[in-house]
Amino acid sequence: MALIVQKYGGSSVGTIDRIRNVARRLLDTAREGNSVVGVVSAMQGVTDRLIKLAHEVTPAPSERELDVLLSTGEQQSIALLCMAIQDMGGKAVSITGAQAGIRTFGSHTRGRIGSIHPGFMLSRLAEGNILICAGFQGITEEGLIHTLGRGGSDLSAIALAAALKADVCQIYTDVDGVYTCDPRIVRDAAKIPSLSYDEMLEMASSGSKVMQARSVEFAKKFHVAFEVRNSMNNNPGTIVQEEIPAMEAVAVRGISIERGQARVTVSGITAPVAYTAKILNALAEAEINIDMIVANTAHDGIARQSFTMHVNDLGHAQAALKPLMAEFGPNARLETEAGLAKLSVVGIGMRSHSGVAATVFQTMADEGIPVGMISTSEIKITLTVDERDVERAASAVHAAFHLNAIKP
Amino acid sequence: MALIVQKYGGSSVGTIDRIRNVARRLLDTAREGNSVVGVVSAMQGVTDRLIKLAHEVTPAPSERELDVLLSTGEQQSIALLCMAIQDMGGKAVSITGAQAGIRTFGSHTRGRIGSIHPGFMLSRLAEGNILICAGFQGITEEGLIHTLGRGGSDLSAIALAAALKADVCQIYTDVDGVYTCDPRIVRDAAKIPSLSYDEMLEMASSGSKVMQARSVEFAKKFHVAFEVRNSMNNNPGTIVQEEIPAMEAVAVRGISIERGQARVTVSGITAPVAYTAKILNALAEAEINIDMIVANTAHDGIARQSFTMHVNDLGHAQAALKPLMAEFGPNARLETEAGLAKLSVVGIGMRSHSGVAATVFQTMADEGIPVGMISTSEIKITLTVDERDVERAASAVHAAFHLNAIKP
Repeated sequence: MALIVQKYGGSSVGTIDRIRNVARRLLDTAREGNSVVGVVSAMQGVTDRLIKLAHEVTPAPSERELDVLLSTGEQQSIALLCMAIQDMGGKAVSITGAQAGIRTFGSHTRGRIGSIHPGFMLSRLAEGNILICAGFQGITEEGLIHTLGRGGSDLSAIALAAALKADVCQIYTDVDGVYTCDPRIVRDAAKIPSLSYDEMLEMASSGSKVMQARSVEFAKKFHVAFEVRNSMNNNPGTIVQEEIPAMEAVAVRGISIERGQARVTVSGITAPVAYTAKILNALAEAEINIDMIVANTAHDGIARQSFTMHVNDLGHAQAALKPLMAEFGPNARLETEAGLAKLSVVGIGMRSHSGVAATVFQTMADEGIPVGMISTSEIKITLTVDERDVERAASAVHAAFHLNAIKP
Repeated sequence: MALIVQKYGGSSVGTIDRIRNVARRLLDTAREGNSVVGVVSAMQGVTDRLIKLAHEVTPAPSERELDVLLSTGEQQSIALLCMAIQDMGGKAVSITGAQAGIRTFGSHTRGRIGSIHPGFMLSRLAEGNILICAGFQGITEEGLIHTLGRGGSDLSAIALAAALKADVCQIYTDVDGVYTCDPRIVRDAAKIPSLSYDEMLEMASSGSKVMQARSVEFAKKFHVAFEVRNSMNNNPGTIVQEEIPAMEAVAVRGISIERGQARVTVSGITAPVAYTAKILNALAEAEINIDMIVANTAHDGIARQSFTMHVNDLGHAQAALKPLMAEFGPNARLETEAGLAKLSVVGIGMRSHSGVAATVFQTMADEGIPVGMISTSEIKITLTVDERDVERAASAVHAAFHLNAIKP
């Protein structure tokens, strides 16, 4: 008998029929002899509807009250899901964030989990109940309601799996798992059977939006292995876990793509000032997230600095940087380029396999695709290409590393 | 500076505009220099919608989960109301039943308030906040969510007023207060400026549905004076309070009416059995609420027993009583009569004013209205009449006691 945590997102519980589907799955898992804990989000659309209501009341709703408002979405879905399980003859109790003992700290609307006190849950499990826990929420020591921000329900599931010492943690989504590349772009993309936390993190931060990076980081920190699965079938999914030596046999695990990128370049910098710090500070103050950063100083001492960001931030970035240009010297210039995409090649295997970078750039050359910026980490190579070239680039790299050959 | 509790029902917060109206009223009260605690229900329609959702999932939703589901309605309205007050420049915080320290016991969906721990609220009040508390909910010692059943938000307001030692407790509704009679029936009915708890209880139990009797009983027990007011104007309402000697100056305070009544009579009882207990037990087992009970034994020992109930229960009552008839003797008969109404004349003054009953029955005789059953208490006379006669009867009694002469 195993203790299994299963997390279902908003689309999996978006209608009464889908709630019944999830109830059936949880009950089947329990009837196989397991202890079962379900973690659920609000029904699809409910959170957006509540946010809209709040904005009808005021253009700037208080975050404390947004938490009180939004946490009702999950509270409704846990009650309805319990009723559905009971209707099928199962034994289930709902567990709010407060009852789960999820103690949070930090700011409203993006609370952080500090500790979990699972006593209430453990005694309900011991009574033979399926527990249905509200994701995305917790309470502070003082009793205030916190929501956990984007991807909060995944985080709840992983934290509860850690606190309950679960044997299995399954994150149900609307895809079969993590793929070697987006199947809409590369038709023969294959499901990855297992990958390490670090690979999952790099895939997540590079645009594979199966899960938020913070949930993966939390799982890594607390050694929670989890599996990404599809709530509409029973296919095996992708297991994300500690790195094991066998994982290094594969040079490249997958490719991720992020469109809608833009590049800002400050060139002709001659004044001897801490220009990188000044640029980054100005962008941080304007709340612009930048991603890749490339700096270069030529032999004549003239510096050039580029960075990428989402294209929606481009206008704000120009406005934030213009006032600085005079400090950087008489020839300093601000240039921008939109219409870019980022392509990342990820795999812990590239630490031991030489020539991964060479293969990537040879492939680009063979395809005649110009490469813009390049940045590398120990397990990732990222490059920018014209947005119009990115699908062709992804398919070519995918084929070059034989990623289609992974068997599910 | 006074501490004022104001309770607003679901129709008072039924739309965003109405939420703004309530926010304005609370803020005005605070800006007059008072500490203010608002207690609110779910937005009109929300509770019904949630109940409908639950019944789409299962024909018999668990009461534990219904409480989890329904309590979200009030949690949403407190958050939205706080946002509205903040939008107007006020300082407000929402308070859930748990945060209010409302500890309940008893059954789910009809929890009873055991104690209130107001520490959290008092410190928020001391910081200069308007508190917006969720009505209708509390939590058990163990942390389970309870709702308080019908009229639960009124009960919350009165209990919070008691726990916070409020100077004023105002119950806002969609009428100006308690009237000498239903103004739709008696056109010159007048608003009653003040009445005692007992009079309010008799008015409530006799069909004046301004408030549930349990809230009035709670107020009486904890000596909380409260005022019933209209949320759409600033008119003075009706104050309900401890009995004071001046109240006895008025013989009759008001008249209430309840339609849709039926009478069941068991006659010809000759067998020496505890027939009243048998009849009442059979009806209690069938969950039928009976109201007036009249029994009579003639000189020859043949007994006759009548009682009234809502006409919807008549079929069930017949089915529950038929099996008993054989025990009551060979001549026992079961008779029923629908189409009745109850008319109650209420006033603590009738204790000291003689002739109230005589005036009532003389008025009926003058009007030629036949009276069915009669029952009296120290401060109430109730009689049944044909439903078609009840408006005429009410107007005549209202005039006989000069109730239209009350000045608001």
